[in-house]
Amino acid sequence: MISIKMQEQVKGNSIIRAMFEEGKKLAAIHGAENVFDFSLGNPNVESPEEVKKAIIEIITTEDSMSIHGYMNNSGYEEVREAVAQSINDKFSTAFTANNILMTVGAAGGLNVVFKTLLNPQDEVITFAPFFGEYKNYVKNYDGQLVIVSPNTLDFQPNLEEFKEKITPKTKAVIINSPNNPTGVIYSKATIIKLAEIMREKQTEFGTDIYLVSDEPYREIAYDHTEVPYLSNYYENTIIGYSFSKSLSLPGERIGYLVIPDEAADYVNIIAAANIANRILGYVNAPSLFQRVIAKCLESKVDIETYNRNRELLYDGITAYGYQCLKPQGAFYMFVKTPIENDVEFCNLAKKKNILLVPGSAFGCPGYVRIAYCVAYKTIEKALPGFKALIEEIQR
Amino acid sequence: MISIKMQEQVKGNSIIRAMFEEGKKLAAIHGAENVFDFSLGNPNVESPEEVKKAIIEIITTEDSMSIHGYMNNSGYEEVREAVAQSINDKFSTAFTANNILMTVGAAGGLNVVFKTLLNPQDEVITFAPFFGEYKNYVKNYDGQLVIVSPNTLDFQPNLEEFKEKITPKTKAVIINSPNNPTGVIYSKATIIKLAEIMREKQTEFGTDIYLVSDEPYREIAYDHTEVPYLSNYYENTIIGYSFSKSLSLPGERIGYLVIPDEAADYVNIIAAANIANRILGYVNAPSLFQRVIAKCLESKVDIETYNRNRELLYDGITAYGYQCLKPQGAFYMFVKTPIENDVEFCNLAKKKNILLVPGSAFGCPGYVRIAYCVAYKTIEKALPGFKALIEEIQR
Repeated sequence: MISIKMQEQVKGNSIIRAMFEEGKKLAAIHGAENVFDFSLGNPNVESPEEVKKAIIEIITTEDSMSIHGYMNNSGYEEVREAVAQSINDKFSTAFTANNILMTVGAAGGLNVVFKTLLNPQDEVITFAPFFGEYKNYVKNYDGQLVIVSPNTLDFQPNLEEFKEKITPKTKAVIINSPNNPTGVIYSKATIIKLAEIMREKQTEFGTDIYLVSDEPYREIAYDHTEVPYLSNYYENTIIGYSFSKSLSLPGERIGYLVIPDEAADYVNIIAAANIANRILGYVNAPSLFQRVIAKCLESKVDIETYNRNRELLYDGITAYGYQCLKPQGAFYMFVKTPIENDVEFCNLAKKKNILLVPGSAFGCPGYVRIAYCVAYKTIEKALPGFKALIEEIQR
Repeated sequence: MISIKMQEQVKGNSIIRAMFEEGKKLAAIHGAENVFDFSLGNPNVESPEEVKKAIIEIITTEDSMSIHGYMNNSGYEEVREAVAQSINDKFSTAFTANNILMTVGAAGGLNVVFKTLLNPQDEVITFAPFFGEYKNYVKNYDGQLVIVSPNTLDFQPNLEEFKEKITPKTKAVIINSPNNPTGVIYSKATIIKLAEIMREKQTEFGTDIYLVSDEPYREIAYDHTEVPYLSNYYENTIIGYSFSKSLSLPGERIGYLVIPDEAADYVNIIAAANIANRILGYVNAPSLFQRVIAKCLESKVDIETYNRNRELLYDGITAYGYQCLKPQGAFYMFVKTPIENDVEFCNLAKKKNILLVPGSAFGCPGYVRIAYCVAYKTIEKALPGFKALIEEIQR
C-alpha cells in the first residue's frame, strides 16, 4: 500500500537510527549507565549560556506575533544579514542577506539544494566514507549518487578516481569536512586540487558542476586545524551549514544555505531554493531559533569537552592495538575492525553493551564509527570492553 | 541550470507569497498603516500566555541537551502520548503515542504522507476551491492532483463529480475543513456521504483510498459549529494537524500526523512515515516546540478577535453589494468578484492599497480570498476602499 520507494526504505532502514533505538532497549534492560552508546551524533555538550539568554530575552521582550509569525520563506532579512556579516568577518567573503537562505537544519538545506538542481538521472558525486543520508537526499529527487571509493591511507578524497567519475551528467559534488564518519578535515591542498579538477571538467563538458559543502561540524576542529571556506576556492559552491553541533541544537532544526553571487545561474538558484524551501513543506526555518542564532553567531559549545573524549578514546583504543587516524574534527573516530566483517564486529561489541555503527553504512566496510559525543565516564567505562573485544578476537 | 521542475516553479511562483512580498513594498512606499494586506494567512492574534510560560519553564528548569537534542524521528514519546490523550478526550478516539508522528507543521506532515503513499502517476483528489500548495505537495512525489470542480452554492464538496473522478489510480483524497479559502466547514452529512462513496469505490476497485485531512483550522470554528473528527467516520483516514493557527505559531513549524491503527497497511505506513520524516530532511519536529505544545494542548488563541473581524468585514462588504457566504471557520472570506476576471479585480483592489488573492489560485476563478487575520482597524480603514471599488465597477 505504501509507495514502492518507501517499501525499499522500510526494508533497509537507517542502521544508525536502528542502533539508537536498540540502545534505548538495552538501557531499559541493563540500566542506561551500563550501556555504552556510541551510535548517534547527538551532542552531549551543553548549549552555550548565550542560547538560553537569547531565548529568554526574545520571549520576554517581544510580542508573540513577531517571534512566531511567518516571514519570507528564506528567513528573516535581518537574521540573514547577520549571518552574512558573521561569515564575512571570519572568511573575508562579501555576502549579503541575498546569499543566505535559512533552513530546517543542514538536512533541510541539502534537500532544498538537490530539489533545486537535480533532474532525474543527474549524478551527484561523493567520497566514501560518507554520511549515508546523502544517498536518500539525492534519491528524493531521482538523482544518482556516485561514490568515489575511500582512500584509507589518510581519508582525504581519492582525487584520481574522482577525475574519472565526473561525466557530463555530474551536476554536483557533495563533501563533508570535518568529516562524518572519519573526523578528517580536508586540507587546503585537497580543496585546491578538487577545485582544479572540477573547473577542468566544467570546461571539458561545457557544464556547471556545483560543489555542495555539508558543514555541520565546521566549528568542531581540534589543534587549530584550518577548515578552508570553500567559496573562496571554487565559484560554483553552495554551503549547507547547521547549528546542530556548534550550538548543540540538533533537535531544533536550524541552519542555512550560502549561495554566492558567483555561482552559475545564481538568480534562478536563489529563487528556486526559496520556493523549494516552501513547497517541500519546510515553509521556513523555525522562527524563534532564527532569532536566537542571530544573537549567538559568535558563540560555540565548549569543544574542549569533545577534545578530552577524543584524547581518552584514541589513546585508549590505540594502546589496545586498534588502528585509527586521530580525528582532526567532528566527534567521530573511524576505526579499522580487527576482523574483516564490520557488521559482525558491531554485533560482538553489542554483547559488551557497546553500540557502534559499521563502516558499511558509510560506504567503507572494514571500519566502525565511534561517536564520542558522550560522557567522559562512558568512555572510561567502555574501554575495558574495547580491550576485551580485541583480545578475544586476537586470542 | 536549475532543474526543469523548478524552472516551471520559478515561472509560476505562488501568487499568495508574491502578494505578501508586494505588500511589503507598498508598505514601504505608503506606510504600513495605509496598506491593507489581506493576502496571507499569518495569524494576528497573540499566542496564549501559556505558550510563553511553557517556554520559560522548560528553558529555565531543564538542561539544554534534553531540550534541544535529537529524539526518535517521530518525536518525543511523552509528547506523542499527550497529543493522543488530548485527541481521545475530545473526540472519543483511542489513540496512543504509536498513532502520532510529530511534524514540521501540517505542510511537513502532508509531504510525509504523500512521500509515504504515492507512486508516480498515482492520483490524489481534492475539491476546489483548495489550498494551492496541494498541487506542489503531490507533484513533489510525481503524483497527479485531480480537482473536483467547485460547488459555488454552499462550497460543500461536489460529491456527484467526486464519485466520477475516483479511479483505480486514486490513492488519496485530501480535504481541508474549516476550509481555506472559503471558511466553510464540511458538515457531518457531507463527511458521511464522502466516506460512503469512498468505501464503495474501494470495494469496486479493490483498492485502499486514504482520506487525508488537512486540519490547521480545526480550532477556529465560530458559532459552536461542529468540525467532525474524520477517523470516526472513515477507517483509512490520516489527519495532518498544525499548531500554526490554534496557538499562533506558524513560523515555528510544529504539527503532527494521526495514523490510526485501523488504516490499511498501518504498520508499514507508520514505519515509512517515520523514515520519510527523516530522509526528507525534517529529521524531527522542532524539539523545544514539541515540548511546548505538550503543555498547551488545552489552550487556544482568542478566536473572538477573528470573530469580530468576521462580523465587521462580512456586514460591511455584503452591505455594499458583494456576494459571499458567511464563513463558519478559519479566517478567510471567499467573495464573488463583481467583475468576472478575479485577477483583474485584484489589480483594481491593489490601486486602493487592498491586497487580495484571486480565486484562480485556489482553482476557483471569479472569486477572491480575503484573509481577515488582520487588525480590526485595518478592516475599518479598508472598508471605504471596498465600497469605492464596487461602486466604480457598477457605475
